[in-house]
This record gives sequence, C-alpha cells and structure tokens, in this order.
Amino acid sequence: MATIDLNTISTRPPEDLDKKSARKQSSKRAERIAELHQKLVAEGKHSVLIILQGMDASGKDGAMRNVFGACAPFGLRAVGWKKPTDEEFAHDFLWRIHKQAPAKGEMVIFNRSHYEDVLIQRVHGWIDEEKVDKRIASINAFEKLLAYDNNTLILKFYLHLSKEQQVEELTERLQEPEKYYKHNDGDWEEREHWDKYRAAYNDVLNRSEIPWHIIPVDSRWYRDYLMTDIIVEALEGLDMQWPELDTERKWE
Amino acid sequence: MATIDLNTISTRPPEDLDKKSARKQSSKRAERIAELHQKLVAEGKHSVLIILQGMDASGKDGAMRNVFGACAPFGLRAVGWKKPTDEEFAHDFLWRIHKQAPAKGEMVIFNRSHYEDVLIQRVHGWIDEEKVDKRIASINAFEKLLAYDNNTLILKFYLHLSKEQQVEELTERLQEPEKYYKHNDGDWEEREHWDKYRAAYNDVLNRSEIPWHIIPVDSRWYRDYLMTDIIVEALEGLDMQWPELDTERKWE
Repeated sequence: MATIDLNTISTRPPEDLDKKSARKQSSKRAERIAELHQKLVAEGKHSVLIILQGMDASGKDGAMRNVFGACAPFGLRAVGWKKPTDEEFAHDFLWRIHKQAPAKGEMVIFNRSHYEDVLIQRVHGWIDEEKVDKRIASINAFEKLLAYDNNTLILKFYLHLSKEQQVEELTERLQEPEKYYKHNDGDWEEREHWDKYRAAYNDVLNRSEIPWHIIPVDSRWYRDYLMTDIIVEALEGLDMQWPELDTERKWE
Repeated sequence: MATIDLNTISTRPPEDLDKKSARKQSSKRAERIAELHQKLVAEGKHSVLIILQGMDASGKDGAMRNVFGACAPFGLRAVGWKKPTDEEFAHDFLWRIHKQAPAKGEMVIFNRSHYEDVLIQRVHGWIDEEKVDKRIASINAFEKLLAYDNNTLILKFYLHLSKEQQVEELTERLQEPEKYYKHNDGDWEEREHWDKYRAAYNDVLNRSEIPWHIIPVDSRWYRDYLMTDIIVEALEGLDMQWPELDTERKWE
C-alpha cells in the first residue's frame, strides 16, 4: 500500500464539481442513509461505528448534522470524547471506548475517539514512543475484534483541513453569536503544534489496519458530498434484508 | 516452552505435605494477602485481576472464600460470569468483560471469564475453529492491554480436578442441604463432554501469552495452600509503597 502523506493531499474540492448540484446530491444521499439505518435497526445483525477525527474546527459537528441528520434517533448514538474522567483514567485507554461500542442494530458516531490517545497524548509527550507503538497495536486488535465478533462496519474519516482555513473557522467562533459556545482558547494553543499533529496523523493513517477515508474539508459542502457517498456505498454493501413477517412474535 | 498436557499432571497433593500445617500456613498467607490488598488500595497505582477457571465443582467458590476472605470489601470485587444477557450478546465477547476490568487500586476476581468463550462455546460447536483462533488472539491482545496500559497484574488459575473427584463433589450437592443451591442438572450433562473440555483447556493453556497456574484441587486444602503462596509472592513482587503523608489534601 502506498504511503499516505497528508502534506501532498489537497484540502480543497475539485474545480469542476458544481457546488449546488453536489449539495442536492448530498441531501438525497443523507435520506438514503436514513433508510439504510432503519434497515440496520430492523434487521439487527450488523453494527456500524463511524469515527470522525481531525484538527480543531475541521467540521466534525457539521458532518454529524448534515450526514446523519436525517436518521431516526432510535438505534443512533453520537458520543463526543473529551478529557477522561478520574474513573476513566483509572483504567486502560480503551476501557471507556469499548463500553460505547455499537450493539447489533445500532449505528454509533464517535466525535474524536481512541485515536486521541495516540495523537494529543503523543504530541504533548505525555506518553513515550514505546507506548504509542503498543497502543496502535491495541487499537488494531480492538477494531478487528469489533469487526469479526460483532459484525461491526467501521468507517473512519479524517477531516483534512488546511492551516489557513482553520484560522477562518476559529475566528468565526469569536464573531458569530451562534458559534461563541464553540470558542476555546485551547484550540488556539493546540494550533501551535500543527506540524506535530500532522506528523502524528500521518503515522496513524499509515499504521491503521482498517483504512481511513481522507476528506478534504476546506469547503464543507464537499465534505458532505464525499462522506454521504462513502457511507451509502458501505451500508449498501452490507446487503441487509428487511426481516420476514413473524406472526408468532409476542414480545422480545 | 514445554507443552502443557493436563492428562499428565496430578490432581492430588504431594504425599509428604502435612495437611494440618499446610492449612495453618494458608490462613497466615490469606492474612498477608489482606494486608497487601490494603496497600494496593492505598497506593492506587496497580490493579489486579484474578481469573479462576476449571470444570464444574472444581472449587472456584471455595477458593474465593478461603484465599480472599480476609480482604476488606473496599477495592475488592468478585464477578461471576454466566450466560450472556441479550444486551451482552449484541456485542463482541469481550465487551462485558472489559467493563469489569479492575481500576487502579482495585483487585477483581473473575469466577469464570472470557475463557468460557473459547471453552463451552467451542466444546458445543457454537463457534467454528476460525473464530476460536481469532478469539484467542483477541484475548492475548486484551490481557496485554490491561497489563501495559493499566498496570494490571493478571493471575490466572486453572483448578485441576479429576473426573472421579468431580462425581464426589457433584453428589454432595444432592445430599447436603447447604449445597443444594449449587446443584444444577446441566453440570451432569456437561460432564459427558469431559474429554472435549480437557482438550479445549489444554489448547487454551498452551496458547495463552500470560501463563496459567495449574492448581491440583482434588484436596481443597492444597488448592488454598498453592494459591495463597502464588498470590502473596506476586503481590509482594509489585513492590508497593504506603503513600507519604499529604497534609495538604482536602478531598479527592
């Protein structure tokens, strides 16, 4: 497999794609995702885990809204991962993650994930390289377990943002009242470590056994266009069936 | 490493060991385990996972009573693993297990464990050999994770019972009122699969990366004598320290 280098991958949409028609397609596909999600719940055989990673202001929240916003709430769950609690710190890094793994018939969206434990922790030197190696091996083993033992489809998205676009997005949070709640001084501090994060992401993307989808997100409409396309195709690939009518069933 | 074959290992205590003095030593060591457990709680740096496996009536309950009975309840937790619930079945086999992993400063005893998922399930053909292989690999990765990422000392005990002694133990459950509650027709049915269980155990003991302690249990006093010895030594090996006095501390 070719080595991934984020520095050589554009964060912009292709020139020849029309924004308006792309948006129309994204909406239609989001409806299709909602249908397929309903089938997932009804059939109850597969589980789906969506992982969203990316620098601050790379559009993870918007992706959740636009891509999964049409889905019904039952059988859908979004989990935002922040700094671990004391109880979580008293366990291995995958303990809190595993608890939130999707059940059969469920789709779970991780806004950030166990990957932070080899990203922010590595960038700040809170763990050494030996631990990074062990954790990456543990992550690969963990994701494999979900896949073979619980029919979990794992879709991982790296939201690929340019450093310039990040400034624009972070600045908006200081200017628009509906975005104030997203402002966090810490994001501006983390920005100082841009190159270290880039290196850590490059490494993770290359060492993950279940591959990542790299989504250019400087234009949010292109993010939605790509993500909806990938998700529709992956869900259709599960070849799910509506269950037969069961006239005997009382309560389960 | 030499191959383990349970068929060549005695289930009896050595002839020259005096039962009465062995019992005295076991009691003393159980007190020592309680002291070391207190230190584990106070220090809050290590976690301990004790795994008990063995055929029906191999003395897992008695081991919990005699070996850990002197420990204080805070920071000690025993978990008995039975047939998974519907919610547990809707996840991978390690999902329910991982939730119960010990926190730092805690000792957890598993009466049966994730190993049942490659024992009873294999013996009855509920999973194929490919899945057995994958699950054994997942178990090794999982135990390694606990060890390096949460300082978990994992002590695994296989309680080694003879087929003849099993009959005696199961029969007692039909004859002694204080043992009636342990009787289960299913145990007599499982006994029919003795050889298959023996083969499955042999395989697991040989493929585990964290090694097992094989404890001959036809005489229960010898079980306690060996287990207390192993546990005291392992806990002492952690080189735990009582924390320094902290006069600044308010509430944590």
